[in-house]
Amino acid sequence: MELKMSLNLPLDHVAIAVSDLESSVKFYTSLGLIFETKREVVESQKVQTAFAPIGEKSNLELLAATSPDSPIAKFIQDKGPGIHHLCFRVEDLEAKQAELEKLGYRFTAKAPFVGAHNCLVNFVHPKSSGGVLIELSQKLKIP
Amino acid sequence: MELKMSLNLPLDHVAIAVSDLESSVKFYTSLGLIFETKREVVESQKVQTAFAPIGEKSNLELLAATSPDSPIAKFIQDKGPGIHHLCFRVEDLEAKQAELEKLGYRFTAKAPFVGAHNCLVNFVHPKSSGGVLIELSQKLKIP
Repeated sequence: MELKMSLNLPLDHVAIAVSDLESSVKFYTSLGLIFETKREVVESQKVQTAFAPIGEKSNLELLAATSPDSPIAKFIQDKGPGIHHLCFRVEDLEAKQAELEKLGYRFTAKAPFVGAHNCLVNFVHPKSSGGVLIELSQKLKIP
Repeated sequence: MELKMSLNLPLDHVAIAVSDLESSVKFYTSLGLIFETKREVVESQKVQTAFAPIGEKSNLELLAATSPDSPIAKFIQDKGPGIHHLCFRVEDLEAKQAELEKLGYRFTAKAPFVGAHNCLVNFVHPKSSGGVLIELSQKLKIP
């Protein structure tokens, strides 16, 4: 049942690159979203994040650069603010990556790596996936 | 309770503009998504659509143009394929639009209009919402 659930409800988050975190929080709050009060800084990515649930197991994740050389600053410089990526949950990322690569889809990193929130992640290259940056994420079990 | 649920789980769908519907269906299916077998054509928008659940109350909606003068064909010509809009549910769209306009946010249509699936809809202009086209949707009660 748990397997079926996670396969059928795979959206983990929608990530949006924003120029100003608090003005975006204000906008989405006025739509009816309820944000966690905590703002998280991911030092490795030089971003500050704000989260709001948008589904039973899905969040909206706002990403603002904390430095001009943050990947999010570069994304906004190139394309303007907007949707950055979609993240779907998978059960076994290594197997899924092998399966997708056999079908001809490309990933941005050679192998899955540990991302935030104790997850193993990798990204399908937008050129492989119709212009959408797709993060695949596998929750790691705490030993 | 129902009010609280819909306020806290507001994502109705993520819409993606695709160049080739069936090759995109194949890609997302290989990620683990399960599409409805039915493909819907929305004549007024000159699009063909495919739906897959990504959450308890949320879908992925793939949009492919059925004609070169479809808004989706124009979107792809300008920006390439990719995420087209996010749709959030609201309880009372007319009141929500008035509230948002008071705060300075702009909509693409003057007033809500009836869209697909018996819903009243309108779009927040991307210039108002940090580069993201946001559809707001209110389910109409069948009289």
